[in-house]
Amino acid sequence: MSMDRLQEKIRQKKNPTVAGLDPTLDHIPQHLKDEAFAKYGKTLRGAAEAYRLFCFGLIDALQDVVPAVKPQSAYFEVLGSAGIAVLEQVVAYAKEKGLYVIMDAKRGDIGSTCEAYANAYLGGISIDGEPIVSPFDADCLTVNGYLGTDGIKPFTALCKEHDKAIFLLVKTSNPSSKELQDMIAGDRVVHTVMADLAVRLTDKEQLMGKHGFSRIGAVVGATHPSDLKNLRAKYPQLFFLVPGYGAQGGKAKDVQYAFDQFGHGAIVNSSRGIMCAWKKTEDGTGRDYQEAARAEAIRMRNDICRYVAIL
Amino acid sequence: MSMDRLQEKIRQKKNPTVAGLDPTLDHIPQHLKDEAFAKYGKTLRGAAEAYRLFCFGLIDALQDVVPAVKPQSAYFEVLGSAGIAVLEQVVAYAKEKGLYVIMDAKRGDIGSTCEAYANAYLGGISIDGEPIVSPFDADCLTVNGYLGTDGIKPFTALCKEHDKAIFLLVKTSNPSSKELQDMIAGDRVVHTVMADLAVRLTDKEQLMGKHGFSRIGAVVGATHPSDLKNLRAKYPQLFFLVPGYGAQGGKAKDVQYAFDQFGHGAIVNSSRGIMCAWKKTEDGTGRDYQEAARAEAIRMRNDICRYVAIL
Repeated sequence: MSMDRLQEKIRQKKNPTVAGLDPTLDHIPQHLKDEAFAKYGKTLRGAAEAYRLFCFGLIDALQDVVPAVKPQSAYFEVLGSAGIAVLEQVVAYAKEKGLYVIMDAKRGDIGSTCEAYANAYLGGISIDGEPIVSPFDADCLTVNGYLGTDGIKPFTALCKEHDKAIFLLVKTSNPSSKELQDMIAGDRVVHTVMADLAVRLTDKEQLMGKHGFSRIGAVVGATHPSDLKNLRAKYPQLFFLVPGYGAQGGKAKDVQYAFDQFGHGAIVNSSRGIMCAWKKTEDGTGRDYQEAARAEAIRMRNDICRYVAIL
Repeated sequence: MSMDRLQEKIRQKKNPTVAGLDPTLDHIPQHLKDEAFAKYGKTLRGAAEAYRLFCFGLIDALQDVVPAVKPQSAYFEVLGSAGIAVLEQVVAYAKEKGLYVIMDAKRGDIGSTCEAYANAYLGGISIDGEPIVSPFDADCLTVNGYLGTDGIKPFTALCKEHDKAIFLLVKTSNPSSKELQDMIAGDRVVHTVMADLAVRLTDKEQLMGKHGFSRIGAVVGATHPSDLKNLRAKYPQLFFLVPGYGAQGGKAKDVQYAFDQFGHGAIVNSSRGIMCAWKKTEDGTGRDYQEAARAEAIRMRNDICRYVAIL
């Protein structure tokens, strides 16, 4: 099952971290941009080619260190169809290298629109009776559940059919997440209502995997360690995707609370920390971006594993 | 200002409705699919071409009847980059025909990711110092604000800079919208907290237009007439985008509450009602899809205008 596979890849590599792929031209070393612009000019297509070179290079450098990558769709969308064409290639390349792919697109809608999103990222479409074609076929998708169960069920239905998983936004890492997500209604908090929805759907639609986690996971930010601790205790069946480590202020001693007593059930994201590691090396040209990314991914793994032993 | 332009287009056409463009192969007449498949085969590209023919045809048929169109991004995303290339063309074509384009993508994220979404749909990107290129350049975008102010501000900043607008999800039309959106916390309800955020940002960032509406509008479903009435009274400065008319059960007498005493401040969506009108004609082949869509759009306009006089 999809969430089982994620847990297994984490155990194999003894590394509970995911490398975020959030390309922007500012983060890409000059020599890659030069190569891309020489081919396609300073155009959307040229920029997309620079994203491709950079993401492929990062995947090559990280493939035996991290269990998963998380492409952030927004950065590809800003290049329009040229960016999406490269996003398709990045997902395929990462899967080829044995990485688990979490598409970070935070989609959410209802009914047939929601089905279209599910099919876009986790399924596919049959064109006039032809076999199903999948533009992305990621392993997992992040989902925004503000619309309620109607906006989650089409995803879980497809997750069962195509053996996929989702991460539902529960408590995000940003400061203003408290405005809505921490509102208290009687004995409930908005973000636990979202987690409760995940648990209810898990039971109703039999979404549990053999390692004790549901196909519906939860996004819970590293920047709220006490929430992490409470949510871990309250929702043992939800796998956590934890953003906010590094640049946003979350530390290894904070994220340890995302894991259960076996060191299971969570994966911690780092995007800029790994992608932009080359900016902090002596070289400074970015020609060493792969070594720098790899070194940072190993440092991060070791940092977290000082607090978390993966059994 | 962008929301002023929407109000002006509505007044010009005396029609407060928006045609949703939610293409699927099931909704597209056979002769258009035949034409598209003949060109590009039964492939993602062939399907995308069918979407293009259908959407262009609908825009031609509706351009002097409706003030706006609302492409639903999900249906294009399911075709991957081929779908997005056509979505770019559909937005451009609708704008060429003088229509206001609301991109229904319900995006939401924080920080630089949120900026990337804003730039993708409402702005553009400068590639290595070149002039800004815009893959879509829509007039307006739907936004999911579950992440709080951090997830809205990058949109409003760009709205001011590029003269654009957004619709924030407040109270959606689906049955399970109550699960989260109607939670009561003290004297507040989750969905009014979202509307309050819109009002606070409007004041703080001076987002009001000359017709008395903010650059931040609100999505409020036609299926909750009492909420529509209360929200209209409470938030006179928020323009409402109203889904749920027709297929979902909302009626003209329900949606009248979305408008102020001048018949201003709201636009009602119909997607399948207009797109699939050809399925209900005697012809049945779909060769009359344009006439059928146009007739339904006029019927809907007249239906709503029985209750709403636009001054």
